[in-house]
Parts: sequence; structure tokens; C-alpha cells
Amino acid sequence: MNNQQNGGSERRTLPEGVPATMKAAVMQKTLHVTIEERPVPAPGPGEVLVKVMAVGVCGSDVHYFEHGRIGPYVVEKPIILGHECAGVVAACGEGAERFRPGDRVAIEPGVTCGRCEYCKSGRYNLCPRVQFLATPPVDGAFVQYIVHREDFLFPIPDHLSFEEAALNEPFSVGIHALNRAGFRPGQTVAVVGLGPVGLMAVAAARAFGASRIIGCDLEANRLAAAVKLGATDTVPAGPEAAERIRQMTGGAGVDAALETAGHPAAVRTAVAALRRGGKLSIVGLPQDPLVSLNVPFLCDNEIDIHGVFRYANTYPQGISFLSAGVPGIRELMTDRYDLEDTQQALHRAMTNKQGSLKVMVYPNGR
Amino acid sequence: MNNQQNGGSERRTLPEGVPATMKAAVMQKTLHVTIEERPVPAPGPGEVLVKVMAVGVCGSDVHYFEHGRIGPYVVEKPIILGHECAGVVAACGEGAERFRPGDRVAIEPGVTCGRCEYCKSGRYNLCPRVQFLATPPVDGAFVQYIVHREDFLFPIPDHLSFEEAALNEPFSVGIHALNRAGFRPGQTVAVVGLGPVGLMAVAAARAFGASRIIGCDLEANRLAAAVKLGATDTVPAGPEAAERIRQMTGGAGVDAALETAGHPAAVRTAVAALRRGGKLSIVGLPQDPLVSLNVPFLCDNEIDIHGVFRYANTYPQGISFLSAGVPGIRELMTDRYDLEDTQQALHRAMTNKQGSLKVMVYPNGR
Amino acid sequence: MNNQQNGGSERRTLPEGVPATMKAAVMQKTLHVTIEERPVPAPGPGEVLVKVMAVGVCGSDVHYFEHGRIGPYVVEKPIILGHECAGVVAACGEGAERFRPGDRVAIEPGVTCGRCEYCKSGRYNLCPRVQFLATPPVDGAFVQYIVHREDFLFPIPDHLSFEEAALNEPFSVGIHALNRAGFRPGQTVAVVGLGPVGLMAVAAARAFGASRIIGCDLEANRLAAAVKLGATDTVPAGPEAAERIRQMTGGAGVDAALETAGHPAAVRTAVAALRRGGKLSIVGLPQDPLVSLNVPFLCDNEIDIHGVFRYANTYPQGISFLSAGVPGIRELMTDRYDLEDTQQALHRAMTNKQGSLKVMVYPNGR
Amino acid sequence: MNNQQNGGSERRTLPEGVPATMKAAVMQKTLHVTIEERPVPAPGPGEVLVKVMAVGVCGSDVHYFEHGRIGPYVVEKPIILGHECAGVVAACGEGAERFRPGDRVAIEPGVTCGRCEYCKSGRYNLCPRVQFLATPPVDGAFVQYIVHREDFLFPIPDHLSFEEAALNEPFSVGIHALNRAGFRPGQTVAVVGLGPVGLMAVAAARAFGASRIIGCDLEANRLAAAVKLGATDTVPAGPEAAERIRQMTGGAGVDAALETAGHPAAVRTAVAALRRGGKLSIVGLPQDPLVSLNVPFLCDNEIDIHGVFRYANTYPQGISFLSAGVPGIRELMTDRYDLEDTQQALHRAMTNKQGSLKVMVYPNGR
Repeated sequence: MNNQQNGGSERRTLPEGVPATMKAAVMQKTLHVTIEERPVPAPGPGEVLVKVMAVGVCGSDVHYFEHGRIGPYVVEKPIILGHECAGVVAACGEGAERFRPGDRVAIEPGVTCGRCEYCKSGRYNLCPRVQFLATPPVDGAFVQYIVHREDFLFPIPDHLSFEEAALNEPFSVGIHALNRAGFRPGQTVAVVGLGPVGLMAVAAARAFGASRIIGCDLEANRLAAAVKLGATDTVPAGPEAAERIRQMTGGAGVDAALETAGHPAAVRTAVAALRRGGKLSIVGLPQDPLVSLNVPFLCDNEIDIHGVFRYANTYPQGISFLSAGVPGIRELMTDRYDLEDTQQALHRAMTNKQGSLKVMVYPNGR
Repeated sequence: MNNQQNGGSERRTLPEGVPATMKAAVMQKTLHVTIEERPVPAPGPGEVLVKVMAVGVCGSDVHYFEHGRIGPYVVEKPIILGHECAGVVAACGEGAERFRPGDRVAIEPGVTCGRCEYCKSGRYNLCPRVQFLATPPVDGAFVQYIVHREDFLFPIPDHLSFEEAALNEPFSVGIHALNRAGFRPGQTVAVVGLGPVGLMAVAAARAFGASRIIGCDLEANRLAAAVKLGATDTVPAGPEAAERIRQMTGGAGVDAALETAGHPAAVRTAVAALRRGGKLSIVGLPQDPLVSLNVPFLCDNEIDIHGVFRYANTYPQGISFLSAGVPGIRELMTDRYDLEDTQQALHRAMTNKQGSLKVMVYPNGR
Repeated sequence: MNNQQNGGSERRTLPEGVPATMKAAVMQKTLHVTIEERPVPAPGPGEVLVKVMAVGVCGSDVHYFEHGRIGPYVVEKPIILGHECAGVVAACGEGAERFRPGDRVAIEPGVTCGRCEYCKSGRYNLCPRVQFLATPPVDGAFVQYIVHREDFLFPIPDHLSFEEAALNEPFSVGIHALNRAGFRPGQTVAVVGLGPVGLMAVAAARAFGASRIIGCDLEANRLAAAVKLGATDTVPAGPEAAERIRQMTGGAGVDAALETAGHPAAVRTAVAALRRGGKLSIVGLPQDPLVSLNVPFLCDNEIDIHGVFRYANTYPQGISFLSAGVPGIRELMTDRYDLEDTQQALHRAMTNKQGSLKVMVYPNGR
Repeated sequence: MNNQQNGGSERRTLPEGVPATMKAAVMQKTLHVTIEERPVPAPGPGEVLVKVMAVGVCGSDVHYFEHGRIGPYVVEKPIILGHECAGVVAACGEGAERFRPGDRVAIEPGVTCGRCEYCKSGRYNLCPRVQFLATPPVDGAFVQYIVHREDFLFPIPDHLSFEEAALNEPFSVGIHALNRAGFRPGQTVAVVGLGPVGLMAVAAARAFGASRIIGCDLEANRLAAAVKLGATDTVPAGPEAAERIRQMTGGAGVDAALETAGHPAAVRTAVAALRRGGKLSIVGLPQDPLVSLNVPFLCDNEIDIHGVFRYANTYPQGISFLSAGVPGIRELMTDRYDLEDTQQALHRAMTNKQGSLKVMVYPNGR
């Protein structure tokens, strides 16, 4: 299910052209990543070996790099980070028949059990047995080759770049957040928090046919990026943001709001910006978990609040949108590194949070 | 649309048997209700005159009686309270063709505009122009006759008592809260707060085919009443309530929770009792509006929170359930008064909050 | 509610600039339309007088013109046809406060009761008491001024032409058909039948973010128009159409199909083009009502079939899409006539069904 | 995944008390079933060995027995029939940790791949790789022991009999048909066709809180059984059935209809019995696949038609209903046989279609 687990299994034959060993960027401890030579794993039954071409650095990667943990998930031994990725099929395991070597694919990083009630009812993102790349103790994608279950690989067309395909991961979060909010074409939406997830949520809202997309953030460069990705309006974050969003919608408020900042004030802005009957999806995790909400406001206006955890069934949808072209998406990728420089990539993302949007790593060269 | 407004209009002829004047219980100021003789109003076009047979005292009536206001709604002149009611059609206005004199009806107290986007999209409870009985400045049902728009009257069968039909109002809140939570037959639910609304929500969950209904409250008499109405389990309110509810559901938590207590601790119990992917409907309005919620818990478990404001399209559903028989419902009605004693009825409800469940008033005799 | 009814009422004062009389194109009998001078009607309470600027000729208008009836709706006295329309507010009746003279509006032609269970539950298109323009005995929009209830008028921006706004009516049918099919952004759709409704459905699918839109019709000019409106692929109608649609979707079939041709073969093509779990919306009314369907296919593949009757709650959505720009929409309007030439307009639409797409009439000049 | 496939695998050790061989009722050819002695299969990883206690004879079993095929599914070699079953866990394979020997379970007969888009989106009944008991070439449950994947076993309480638990299979069809029709508590439903599936659908409608359940069939004994299971009204099948159902609902028609008869006339009765906006689920497969439907009726009334194929995610729901008690269910089981008499059981079901309701087989004694 992941290269770590297969690394220990008996060595199967790999096809010609696939090397026996590869480079892997291993986080030995916080702030410390080294490049190791590791055996290229062999795909087991139903699995595929993918040559990794592009990996985005996610905020969670940076958090593990800096703090060694996210809530209950603790890095207790060396780990390979990275889970926003795309590549080329290098070899197919027994019974893996959906792909052939050479196929270009986006990798959905969470491999689920397929047998619990969540998996069976269409909400596999809630599967308690999920194996998610770069979530301890599962290794991730800052490697040259990775083994993945074939049903979590999705074909991408030739004209779609690997780095854009890698962005399907944060894009999926935005798509899922809109799906959770029951978002319908023609509706209005505010996206509060314009980091990479928020910006990709703007792109998702555009793809969903939103009539009005209002971006809200503290940073001017992010507001500018939002406009390139499809925001029709922007509002600086602050105590008056909700009121300004209301004014932009004729006083009514937006149909839906997405909170991606992970900040109590942003949650409250998002709630207060909603129209009567509006829906909020919360994506961001605040440092301090307790956020106070105005319950009579929620009741009087029949507000819906939807917690968002990753995504389910979004990859084909996201790829179809990316394939049709997402304007401004290339400007999201502000920094590019080779695999050997993964430590710098993580350091850059950690220290330039305002300036960098998406930092990319290319394990097999750019 | 309401008797106050029609009181001023020209006097139309009323049919034989309908008196020219009637008794009305008018709240002159807080804690002070007097009986006045008033003209029986005449129904306008599309309206019906109803002889009021039973009226339940709601917590909001008590709140106006005690404090003279609820949030932004202020009693600024004498008002007639009461909005949970049923009666007999006495006369039909021009073009009101759904009923005939003698028909027994439940009265849905909120009359909506039918022309705003909320009315048109099926969420008429959010209509900004609603005229709701006993919400200032609109008069309510502690009177012998009331005029109401015919489309907010619903026929009840002969075997259903007026007092049970009056309970269709709080029943509707429970039904709507379940609908908002997407409740499906066979699911599990916790009802936190077992006042009359919570108890009727228990009855609603039973009618919806819930497989497990867990009632939670501080008071033993309410827990006992919940069992009579269909609760399969009860839990005393307190810091361990959520954990005990989880244990009762095999550790998983409930599919849905309804908060009807209007207390921050109850909201938190209700959230914490939910299973992964669970849904919370909040009905109660806490005194202090700000309630702190654990946002990472909401996100990690994809919890849905739904604010609930009154109800829409529930009256026929509620009447069908009541007509099929709701076990234990008669024990809800703990106190009964004539219209002349409306002040005592309100006082009883105000001063015996733990002991009394539903206090009823009978404007035309018991 | 419509000019016919108000024509008989007492004459209220109209504002300056509104003439006392106007021209109306009255169908005296089949195939025979004359221009009459009629009083300009005065808006009643909650109503608005609209100066009609553009009216599209619908297939139903042509059918009444040619046959004098559609199913149970029979033209029994002279009638004014036309219901796809937009114009400028000329005067507001008592209590009509949403608009001011000079406001540009699209007219939703069906005025509903707002009080039946369909209206109250959000499906007002099923209201049994609807008054629909140009459906006997209600007069329509081939006039210079028309009175309409204000809640069925919708503001349009200055940059949107009246003729495009008039097309919001057939556009609404397409939007509603997609809504009925639960259509989600990124899905695939086939539109079988590419008359004006089918073509506007193509435009709607594009606005909904469809990933693939396959148009199907017998006529090459319609297939070409579909491409301009956003179809990604086209297929000539015929016994192999369903198989070709399947091939275009990798053998799977489309997520949704819309049937707008009103032909048994088209219904069967649309069903057979669906993927497992796919959804069909039927818009077209076949001449011979009985259409045979393959029930085991429906069951084995859990197909959903949704009948479509007009639309509800689509006007703001449609206007937002039209305002954002619908490519190719202007090429839909193939023929243009003054009000005086309404008979020729209807005749043109009747006799040039393959060549003409949308025939427009301009009651107050082009 | 099924005993046939595991029969060929290496022999694993079975726990004490499980015999090495067992009796199996094998259909050698049409109308010919013999009892064979076969090795008890061993559960593989994630699998469980179940001692089969009760098996219902389904119409599909009878069809294979009589005709050797159902549509594209052809019996080409000896097969074990039977798929409505329950039993006791006898042994657990590697990693199968949900159960322990002695646990009582209902068996959901279709084992799905868990990896296709249907499985992942909650519609696993549409999985193209499903292995369904007693659907050629997969063997079924007329055996003493069967191996099944643990996630398709569901615990049943001690007080629920195995034969009732076996009925959870046809019950699931009824539940799923109601789910497909979006059935809500308090709604009205007609069930057209009252074989075992139709009768269990009546029971399901009762569990869903239907306010009115109208059963329709040709046979008086089935109408009588429907009443015992919860039907509030019955109507003999025939050309006037739809009109009578309408009359029973005040002229409006039912909210939902389920067709389980597999007959064109029944489909048409079910459609014609629907109210405006009503929903039909089609369960039955007619002999002649083409059924003509009135398309203008479907459109004018916005009817929804939903094909139904087996079920998904219904087993826990069904068990919760069965555990709460389904009145009349025991009267469904009209005939009982030992495993040795499986041929007679099938013959009885084949030749006494009007008189027998559910024929049961008990592989390990009654």
C-alpha cells in the first residue's frame, strides 16, 4: 500500500528501464532532511509503481518539518514527506490492469480500506484505516518512485503538466468543501483565507460556475493571485470584512463561505458573511481548537456548518477542470526545487509563508 | 392576516351562531394579563375564522410574560400571547374554499408572504415578512376566535383531540430539526434537553423510525416522560453525558443529535456525542449567545451543524403522526386552565419549570 | 395578474410618458393574427407595468398558431401569444416596491398562487393555479405593455440585451432539467434534440461546468449552433447515436441526458446513452404520448428518469449566467420582426423549423 | 470470496467442532438438485466461515431451477443456489477481526470490489465486479457452511431468529426502493405486486413511518398478508386500481409507488397512482422488457422513475427494524424444508406461486 511496507517484502522483478535504487528525501528529525539511496519498491497485487515527476509542498509537510507532529500524528522515526504528486506509471503489479507503463497519472494520496461503513457509503475520506502519504508512519512522495494502489491513480491528459496535476490534491480540498456546502452553479461564495488551499478553492468555485467569488486574506499578493484564479472581488481580512462582503452581495450575504485560514477570526468572518440559509465549510484547523460562535445567529438564519476532512471522489472532477484550463494556476507555483534540495524547499515554504504560494519539488528533474 | 389587523377593518357579517364579541386574554404589561371583551374579527379574502379550542403555553410566551421581550422582539403595547393552537372553523372569508364551518383544524401560526425567494424555494420559515402569532406586534391565540389565512390551517381527524393538535406546533420543531439533520429511518439520535420541544422531538424521532433514541436532561421527571414518548435510553445531563451516549452506541456515537436546551454545555454534549459524519441540529437559544466549539473535532469528523428556526412544511406530516397515535403524549399536558385564568397559566409555566411540562389553555371551555 | 384581467378593471392613473393605449398582436383564430389598439393596463397591488422590449417565439406559440390547442389547453377566444420576454418597468402598483420605472427586467411568465403545497415546498412550477402567459385563457406578451406580479420580475444588468434576457425563459428550462438530473460540475451530458430549448440546455450545461457536452440532432445547422454554445462533441441523430455517445465517453455513457426533441426515438437514444447510475430529464412532449422503455435496462443500471415541467427558482441563476456571457447566444436569434409583423414571425417559425432557430419580436421597436 | 473458489485452495486448518465435510444441495441441471458431500471450505484472509442456519428461496432461485438462466446469466455447470441467508460464525480467517465463533450473523450476499467508482461513491450495488451468491458461476447458500468476506456479515441480536434475519435480503430490496424514491416519514406509498419482495416492502414502508401504505395484487392471500405486515389499505390489481388508489388519497395520488410485480400493467398502475411530483421505484423485471409509458404525464407532473438493482448499505438498517419487531413477518414463511429436501423446496416455490409466500430451507436442521 505504500513504499515503506513494500520495501520489506520479497524483491520482485522490475521491468527494464526501472533502476534498482532511487533517491529519497528522508526527514531524519525536525528541520533535517537528507537524501538516501533506497531500493525502488516493487508493486504488489493491484498496485502500480509510479515515477514521481512533481510534488507540491503542503502546509502539513511544513508543519511536520517544523514541529514533528500535527495533533495526534507524531513523527517517531525518519519519514518521507510529500503527498501532492503526479508522475508516470513505471510498472504494474499483478492484476493491476487499469494502467500501462508510460501512462501519466495524478496520485490521490489516501488509500482506504474499501470495507468499512464509511468506504461503503461514499465517504471514504472518513475511513478509520486510511493510509495517507506523509502522515506518520506512512512515507510520502519526496522520492523518485512510489508504489500506490491502482484505484487511487487517475489518468491525466498529455497536455496537463505534472505540476498542475499535483495541484489536484489541494484543488480536491476546495472541490470537496464546495460539495459539502451543497454549492450550485450560479451561487455566490466567499473564500476566507487565500493560501494554496484557499486559492485552489477560488479556482474550484470558478469551475463550479459561481456567479460571484469573493476572496478574503490579509496579504495583498494572495488577493492578487485570487483575482487571477477567478475571484470577482477581494476584501482585506479584518473586523469589517464580513460587512463588506455583505455589501458586495446587495446586503444579503453569500450563499456559501469556505474557511481555509484556520483562524477563529476567519471562522467568524465567514459565518457573518453568510446570507440567511447560507452554508459554511470549515477547512482550516485553528491553533487553539475552541472557536466561539454566535448560536442565535446560526439558528435564526438556519446556517449550516460543515466540517471538511480531505475529500472523496474528487479526483476525476478536478482533473476534468484542470484539463479544461484553470487560468492563473501557473502563478501559484512560486518556487521550484530538485529532490536533492527538498530540505531547502521545506525551509523556503516555512520561512516565506507570505511570499511563497506553492513550492514544488521535482524528484526526476524539471 | 391576524385579528389585530382585521379588528380595524369594516365589520363584515358573521354567520349565525358566531357571537359579536369574545373574550381575549391581553397582556397589558409584564406579568399582568387581563380579560377583555373584543369584537369577533371577520375573515377577509382567503381567510378563515377559527373558534380556538386549545392553546399550549410555549416557553416564548412565558419569556414575553416575564421579560416583555425576546432579543429584538419587544412588547411595546398590549399583546395577546399564545401560538400553539387548534380549533373549529366558524366562518370562511371570500374565496376561502378549503374549509367549511365545523371543520376541525390545527393552526400553523406563521403566515408568510409567499413571494420572496425563501417562500419560493421551500424555506418559508425564513421569510422576512412572516406574521407569526404572539410575536410582537402580532396578536396570538389566547382568544375565543381568531382569523387566519386558510393555507395555514390543516384538517385534523375527529379522533384527534384539539390539545394534541395544538401540540403539533412544538412537534413541528422536532420534525423540522430531524429533517434539517437529514435523519433517516433506522438511524440513532440523541435529544439533549427534554422540555416540551425536546420531548416532542423524541416523539418525532420515534415516528421517523429511529432505531435508538437517547434522551438527556437534568430532571428525572423529564427523563421519565421521554421514555414514555419513545426514548430507548436516557442519560442525566452532565460532563459525562456525551461519553455515556457514545458507550450506548457501541462507542461510535449517534448519527444525529438535537440540542433543545439552549445551553452551551448542552451544545457541547450534543457535538461530542456524534459519530464521525454525524449531524447536529441546534434548536435552543442560549442566554449568552457565544458558544465555543471544537473546530478540529468538527473538521476531522466532518460534523454538520444545522441551525433550526421554527419549521416549514411539517404540519401535514405531524398531523399524520399524531393521528396514528403518539404514546405518552397526554402525559405531557400537566396543567390545564380556562381562558379567564390565562394569567395563572402563564404564571404556573413560569414558576414550575421543572415540574410542569405543557400548560394548556382552553378558550372555549374544556 | 395579467393584462386581460386588469383590462376590465377600473382605469387607474398611469404615470406620465405611458400612453393610454397600445398595440397588441391578437390571434383571432388559427393562422390569423391582427394588430389591435388596446388600453394600456394599470398595475394592481403588488403588480408592475412593463414596457415589453423583446419577445421570443416559442414552439408552443407556433403550436397554438397552427393548431389552436396543445393537449387540454384550447384557444376558445382571441388570445395574445408570447411568453419569452423582457422589458422596462413603466409603472409600479400599490405596494410594489422592488422596482422603479426605468428598471430593466426579465419576466418569468408563470404567476403562481404561493399558497398551495407545491408553492410552499419549492416546486411552484407544479402549482395547479398558475397563470402562465399565453396559455389559454391567459394573454401573453406580444403587446407593448404588460402587467405582471413584481415577484416574477427579475432585474437585469445594463449590459445584457433585452433579447438575451428574453431567452432566459428557454434557458430556464435547460437549467431546471439539469437541476432535476442532479447535475454536478465536471459531469458529462448528452442533449438529444437541439431546437432552441436544447441549444439553451447546452449553454446551461456549459455554465454548470460540464466536462463534456454532446449534442445530438438531425440537422447540421443545429449541431453547428450547439458547438458555438459550448457542445464539446456532436452526433447526428439516428439508430447509432447512443452507441457513438458511449464511445465518446470511453464506453461508459454519460452521467446525464436531456431529451428535448419530443420524439420516442430520442427518448430511447437518451436512455441508451446513459452510464450505469445515469439520469435522464425528459423535456420534450412526443406527439404520440406512449413511449416504450426497456425496464430491465432501467433497473439493472439504476437509471433515474425525471419528467420536466417548466422550471422553478431558475431566473436569478439564468440571469447570472447570461450576464457573465454565453458565447454563441446571439447566433440563436435568426429572425427578427416588429410587433406589427407578429403574424409573419409566427408563420416564419412554423414554416422554417429546420432553418430558423429563435424568431424574435420587438413590440416597441428594435 | 465464495466457497467454490476457496474449494480449490490449499486446505487450511479448521477449528475444533467444524467438520471436514458438509452437505451441499447442487443443481445439476434444470429441475434437478442432488445432495453432495463436499469439503468445508476454509476462510481466507478477511473471510469468515459461517454455519448456515436458514435460507429463503427467492424468485431468482426458482427461475434458475426452472429455466437455467436469467437474462444474460446462464447456468453452465452445476451450481448451488440460495442467497437469502443467516447463520453462526464457525471460524475466522487471517485478519478477520470483526467476529468470533458463535456470533450470529445475517449474510449480505453480494461481495463487491471496493475499488471501482461505484463502490467508492456509495453505490456498490452497481459494482461491475460484484460476486453475488447463487448468480452463475458463483455458488450460493444451500450448504451447511459457507465462506464470506467479513464486511458483508452483520451481527444480529439473540432474540432475532435466523429465518427472520434471512429475510433481511428481500427486506433490503424494499428499503432500497424506498430510499431510491426519497421516501420520507409521513408520506404515502403504494406497493404494486405483493410477492415476498412486495410484502417486505410493505414492512419497510411501515418501518419508515409511512402514513398510508396501499397494497395492490391479484391474489387475496397476498392482500391479506400485506395488511398483517402494515398495509393500511388494499386494492385488487386491475384496470381500475390506479383510480382507486387515487381516491384513497383524497384524489391526489400517492407520494411514492413501488413496482415489484414485473408486469407492464403493474408499472402503468404504479405510475398512474402517483401524485404530481410523485416518485416511482421499479423493482420487478417484466418478461417482455419493453413497457410503454405516458411521457406527457411524466413531464406534466414531474414524475421521477428510479430503477432499482438490489441494494446498498441497507443491512444494518434492516436488522434494526427486524430487531424492533416486524408484525406479521412470521406468516410470510409458509413452507419449511431441510437441506436434503432442497429440490422439493424449489419445486414447491415453483408450483405454488399463488399459495406459498416464502419457502425456507434449514441446512443445519430446524
